[in-house]
Amino acid sequence: MRTFIFLTLLFSANLFAHNDNNHQAESSIRAVMAAQQAAWNTGNLTEFMAGYWQSDKLRFASGDSYRHGWQTTLDNYIKGYPDATTMGQLKFDIIDIEQLSDNAALVFGRWQLTRTKDKPQGLFTLVFRKFGKQWLITRDHTSSAK
Amino acid sequence: MRTFIFLTLLFSANLFAHNDNNHQAESSIRAVMAAQQAAWNTGNLTEFMAGYWQSDKLRFASGDSYRHGWQTTLDNYIKGYPDATTMGQLKFDIIDIEQLSDNAALVFGRWQLTRTKDKPQGLFTLVFRKFGKQWLITRDHTSSAK
Repeated sequence: MRTFIFLTLLFSANLFAHNDNNHQAESSIRAVMAAQQAAWNTGNLTEFMAGYWQSDKLRFASGDSYRHGWQTTLDNYIKGYPDATTMGQLKFDIIDIEQLSDNAALVFGRWQLTRTKDKPQGLFTLVFRKFGKQWLITRDHTSSAK
Repeated sequence: MRTFIFLTLLFSANLFAHNDNNHQAESSIRAVMAAQQAAWNTGNLTEFMAGYWQSDKLRFASGDSYRHGWQTTLDNYIKGYPDATTMGQLKFDIIDIEQLSDNAALVFGRWQLTRTKDKPQGLFTLVFRKFGKQWLITRDHTSSAK
């Protein structure tokens, strides 16, 4: 009987720890994306890039092309968004956060730029991995209207 | 000393089992995608859809829109590709398979349709989950040239 109670308590503790981990992961991920949005909207692309894994293995895919590397991704952002007018105001809407393991999560959502002349928008699928206590984007697949 | 040898063997056995699981996952995933490609190229959309999780929670994203559900995804394929001419010949190139846990993998690659009049192409990011022994696509994010 004691063993049963002990095991039940252990199992419950594990479940709580699991839910708590998921909750922490989700909060961290939302914080990373909120910081990215804020950085973009003050024109700071380097700070925006702080949400990405600073590695040559970071993968960024958009439309029909992809590239690897944190620096390459930053360089491409700088080329594509040279000033405040092209950057506009960014808004992320997180549609779903799906924990795939203790250190991996899939984030799906919508991005929208509000600019003087247009309002481009589309979807993103991100893989976040946990590095120590920090969640960072390791894979980004972005798409927009054809 | 015996304990050390025992633990070393146990650890090695775990490592082998882990690599073996990854290897099996990759083979299964490649087989699912090869079957999808073959089904598409004989004009069988229902068989193509056998690679997807048969659930209302299946998510399919493309460009700036997404939808949920296996049947809805099939209906959209039928609408978008009504005959052999619009379907053309499909080719998948798997660029990367990344195991995220024992029952989740991320698959990134390129798709290309060869049709009489054009040759559309783009990228895909897929999440595969393991159901029993079967790996199936639960999330699909597809993009193409703008």
